[in-house]
Amino acid sequence: MKVRVGVIGTGAIGADHARRLSKVLVGAEVVALTDVNRENAEKVKANLGLNAEIYGDGHELIAAGDVDAVLVTSWGPTHEEYVLAAIEAGKYVFCEKPLATTAEGCRKIVDAEIAHGKRLVQVGFMRPYDAGYRLLKQAIDDGELGEPLMVHCAHRNPEVPEAYITPMAIQDTLVHELDVLRWLLDDDYVSAQVIFPRTTKYSHSKLADPQIVLLETAKGVRIDVEVFVNCKYGYDIQCSVVGEEGVANLPEPVSITTRKEAKLSQTLLTDWKKRFIDAYDVELQDFIDGIKVRELTGPTSWDGFAAAVASDACVKAQETGQVEAINMPPRPPFYG
Amino acid sequence: MKVRVGVIGTGAIGADHARRLSKVLVGAEVVALTDVNRENAEKVKANLGLNAEIYGDGHELIAAGDVDAVLVTSWGPTHEEYVLAAIEAGKYVFCEKPLATTAEGCRKIVDAEIAHGKRLVQVGFMRPYDAGYRLLKQAIDDGELGEPLMVHCAHRNPEVPEAYITPMAIQDTLVHELDVLRWLLDDDYVSAQVIFPRTTKYSHSKLADPQIVLLETAKGVRIDVEVFVNCKYGYDIQCSVVGEEGVANLPEPVSITTRKEAKLSQTLLTDWKKRFIDAYDVELQDFIDGIKVRELTGPTSWDGFAAAVASDACVKAQETGQVEAINMPPRPPFYG
Amino acid sequence: MKVRVGVIGTGAIGADHARRLSKVLVGAEVVALTDVNRENAEKVKANLGLNAEIYGDGHELIAAGDVDAVLVTSWGPTHEEYVLAAIEAGKYVFCEKPLATTAEGCRKIVDAEIAHGKRLVQVGFMRPYDAGYRLLKQAIDDGELGEPLMVHCAHRNPEVPEAYITPMAIQDTLVHELDVLRWLLDDDYVSAQVIFPRTTKYSHSKLADPQIVLLETAKGVRIDVEVFVNCKYGYDIQCSVVGEEGVANLPEPVSITTRKEAKLSQTLLTDWKKRFIDAYDVELQDFIDGIKVRELTGPTSWDGFAAAVASDACVKAQETGQVEAINMPPRPPFYG
Amino acid sequence: MKVRVGVIGTGAIGADHARRLSKVLVGAEVVALTDVNRENAEKVKANLGLNAEIYGDGHELIAAGDVDAVLVTSWGPTHEEYVLAAIEAGKYVFCEKPLATTAEGCRKIVDAEIAHGKRLVQVGFMRPYDAGYRLLKQAIDDGELGEPLMVHCAHRNPEVPEAYITPMAIQDTLVHELDVLRWLLDDDYVSAQVIFPRTTKYSHSKLADPQIVLLETAKGVRIDVEVFVNCKYGYDIQCSVVGEEGVANLPEPVSITTRKEAKLSQTLLTDWKKRFIDAYDVELQDFIDGIKVRELTGPTSWDGFAAAVASDACVKAQETGQVEAINMPPRPPFYG
Repeated sequence: MKVRVGVIGTGAIGADHARRLSKVLVGAEVVALTDVNRENAEKVKANLGLNAEIYGDGHELIAAGDVDAVLVTSWGPTHEEYVLAAIEAGKYVFCEKPLATTAEGCRKIVDAEIAHGKRLVQVGFMRPYDAGYRLLKQAIDDGELGEPLMVHCAHRNPEVPEAYITPMAIQDTLVHELDVLRWLLDDDYVSAQVIFPRTTKYSHSKLADPQIVLLETAKGVRIDVEVFVNCKYGYDIQCSVVGEEGVANLPEPVSITTRKEAKLSQTLLTDWKKRFIDAYDVELQDFIDGIKVRELTGPTSWDGFAAAVASDACVKAQETGQVEAINMPPRPPFYG
Repeated sequence: MKVRVGVIGTGAIGADHARRLSKVLVGAEVVALTDVNRENAEKVKANLGLNAEIYGDGHELIAAGDVDAVLVTSWGPTHEEYVLAAIEAGKYVFCEKPLATTAEGCRKIVDAEIAHGKRLVQVGFMRPYDAGYRLLKQAIDDGELGEPLMVHCAHRNPEVPEAYITPMAIQDTLVHELDVLRWLLDDDYVSAQVIFPRTTKYSHSKLADPQIVLLETAKGVRIDVEVFVNCKYGYDIQCSVVGEEGVANLPEPVSITTRKEAKLSQTLLTDWKKRFIDAYDVELQDFIDGIKVRELTGPTSWDGFAAAVASDACVKAQETGQVEAINMPPRPPFYG
Repeated sequence: MKVRVGVIGTGAIGADHARRLSKVLVGAEVVALTDVNRENAEKVKANLGLNAEIYGDGHELIAAGDVDAVLVTSWGPTHEEYVLAAIEAGKYVFCEKPLATTAEGCRKIVDAEIAHGKRLVQVGFMRPYDAGYRLLKQAIDDGELGEPLMVHCAHRNPEVPEAYITPMAIQDTLVHELDVLRWLLDDDYVSAQVIFPRTTKYSHSKLADPQIVLLETAKGVRIDVEVFVNCKYGYDIQCSVVGEEGVANLPEPVSITTRKEAKLSQTLLTDWKKRFIDAYDVELQDFIDGIKVRELTGPTSWDGFAAAVASDACVKAQETGQVEAINMPPRPPFYG
Repeated sequence: MKVRVGVIGTGAIGADHARRLSKVLVGAEVVALTDVNRENAEKVKANLGLNAEIYGDGHELIAAGDVDAVLVTSWGPTHEEYVLAAIEAGKYVFCEKPLATTAEGCRKIVDAEIAHGKRLVQVGFMRPYDAGYRLLKQAIDDGELGEPLMVHCAHRNPEVPEAYITPMAIQDTLVHELDVLRWLLDDDYVSAQVIFPRTTKYSHSKLADPQIVLLETAKGVRIDVEVFVNCKYGYDIQCSVVGEEGVANLPEPVSITTRKEAKLSQTLLTDWKKRFIDAYDVELQDFIDGIKVRELTGPTSWDGFAAAVASDACVKAQETGQVEAINMPPRPPFYG
């Protein structure tokens, strides 16, 4: 009774998810692959020793009778089309971020899913599956901190390539905070402002780095997120929730503590892939498990849409230097 | 091509391993169960929805043609007999500690395995599979600390039942350090001494608690392990390796950091089951993966024998108050 | 050769400084006291066993021939008048914050001091004398962090009385950050913005608590300071400097680490007086030592003026909700 | 009303205490100096600008009419003689460790002081004046940890000169733990054992380094102290008290926390002089303050004697490899 999965797009993340489904997780098997570069799909099939069909494109794969669920890990601009096709076919679909490149595209998916009448889509936001964030959410939900009032965050990367430009600090980097903080606070954003500190000498002319994004939620919580993608020293995710009764901080990644050369130190990560590596397993297992009981519980299309709306407002705030409103329509009852 | 596993003994740990094999890990299926209490085996089968045969005893299960590998999770005194039977049948066997209740019994298993000519046995010592200990070992093996000179450890439990008496501090508790420190240091013990501090008021008349066990290795490393099983405050495993160039400590378990009521605090575990919960998954997956490539790499019969020899000497040292020699024969080339 | 000091205002802080000068520090003696409530001065004299004259008011005290230096620890609105009188008399003067209740008043003092031709005034900002901030400044000045780009701060008090209202979050609380961050960064502020998160239920109608103050410096450093004066859990001062090469955080106050009741914890302070208690000794000793060599090196009138100008802009920003410019004239060469 | 102090021995520690008394502390003045090398005393006098007499030897200095109290900071073997002379003259005397080079010598001082009828002697054990140890003692005395059962300590130096040989690990290094742990636990030692781990390659032929000293107290507390004086990485003092209800650890020295080059780190000290630098001020101020009220409260002759008795037993245990008894006579009521 394994869930038979087809993977659309077998680049780095697609290949990794295929490995995960076939070698790490339980209850799934990869039965179908496709990629714009067919050889790539062949290679993944061979490397993983999969008993899978290679399809000419995503639509063929979605249509295949033995495909129960689809992973959309292709190039971002193709996500919307494939997710819509999967919904059309009544198949479960796990879509890596972004759900669509525009808020409008996300909204179409939401509408299609509601029209279908049942949740079929899970968006690949993995942080809600991270053990640290889960402990933080539990502390909030248990009332240990009282009502949250502020959240201070930092999202730091050691460096980014030349192709990474100013709006990507929102679209590629901040988007993870946009998702996870909504979930953490069970709240929606109402405004955004972006502040540009002096730029690090390690950045380039098309990238203002670091940036500080200020968000306000419907409940009045104020969030500041430092996005600093050429911080040099490591991949570092900080999150501190300040509530009426106390403050809680996200754990540092596990490390031995070393005393050497006049330093008491812990190792920090430099590779983002390692920071949430366990969370990727958990999120995808959750998708498979959800399919089995016919009830997905992970990040929804609506969450993908919310992230897109907030992201658009933040990019606008980058450009205008002003406080920009974030206008989210009310959450449809469908998304509970 | 799944490894077909039979589980002998479906008590707490056996049932948990059966769940792990069938619901968490990949590459295995539970096809056979047995328990002194047949109803217990039936219940596990039902709870996990297993497609498994229930056998009258371990010998029948071992003999079954569709059983590729055996898990021995029955009552300790029966381990030796079932492991020997599995070797006799040429089947892979994962045996929970103790491998046998006497060093002599362990030695018989070692001899049988060598006579068989191929490693078939993995002993259920899970700490070498813990992420923290692995980081510690890597630091040692990479030479970051220089040659190890001393190891300071603590093994603390919040409390133990009345049935837990003085020698169990060695046999049930210290035995984990006896195994993991040999692996960590790649060394053997040569002597043991036990010191009895003032006993905590939370202990009872048959249990000297805490105890401090002093070990010396062949390379001259000195180890002290505080075993304190009524420490009240939590389940706490400490390990600090002091080398010529520096010192490294095992990480604390992951926790958020909270500021509340004039305290900056992290939560400590109180339940030992949670401390190495991930390690159980990794050790058993490693057993399954080893079977697939026909080469086990986890804790060996020899490791089980070494733990038994050291454990016997420590119990003797408890009784005599003297430094007791630990006489390990040289490691057979069979065990690399 | 002791510095003979007169204390104007023998309330809590004046009495404490009198004790410090006579019982803790070296090189000074308290020879004169005055207070609006003469009995209060008498009591301090008696408690400390001082051989000191009691004067009718601050002006008489300043005029006394045997008074070498003056401490102004009277009610805030009287500071300006006494500091100006001390300068007029050519006497060294240590003035508790605020130097004057208006920026204009501070500026008058600056002008009077420049006209006098020699530094006579030290303002009672103690944080630059705190060991933790000094380590932070040293790391910055040694280039360990690269150029500073951002500073994230928090200033949290467990609670405040009813009389504490919204602008006091700037004037009484933030003012310490306004001083210490200028010193830490060797920089001046150019703009301020104040953000109001949802108010804690522990505040009252006249106090918006918490607040987040955003500052920009001439060099482009961006600072955010959370001011939260009813945080319940403790008196907590946080400061994190993010530079091009790394990040450094102010130390937590010294505490033993305790493992108890499933918590690994350190004690946080709840009383602000204890947080900088050592710094008070160091700042006043520095004042005395400076007098002896006729060269004060502590916080200047100009620093007091700068704090007042920034403070005024922050209060305005509280009212307007807008980004407000902070217009500091160029630093006179007199203040190096 | 200043306490007029004479300093016998103006080497490094004597000169530093003279500076402390004249420049840092209150209530004392240095009025007399002597040194085997008179020029040395002259130099200290000149450097500190002291108005002090230089005497031909310690006995002349002790006899001087204007000397109220004596500091014995001369070569160790001369301590006993000068302390006895000071008692004979009825003068307060602060003696750096060792009080005498033999337990017998210490006992003579104890007897002389008792015969004199009033406490005159304070021994220069500074750790009970350290803020960290005080917090630890307070936690014990407040019952926060329950009854102490074990203490785990480490005393690590980066390196020692060639002249430092095996018994000095006890006499010069462990002696500080021997003093502070008696005070911390309010207990006496009854036995000692010394264990020699493999020696670090950074040691030399006359020094077994590291060593582990095991102590037992009258109340049954078991103490292990790792003494490692070529640990390379820093000067590091660890102390962990394990009680019936919880565990408390000495704080690390104050440091900023830095994130840089993939490390989250704090700076460790390498210079022992900095570790207890504040404690030196506090201990000597306490001596001066005690003289003023004619009641010394710091470490007594009896404490010096106890340290000597324990130290002798530990050196014997180094030599015999056996558990050696520590036979302390009962504490005379004179020492409360």
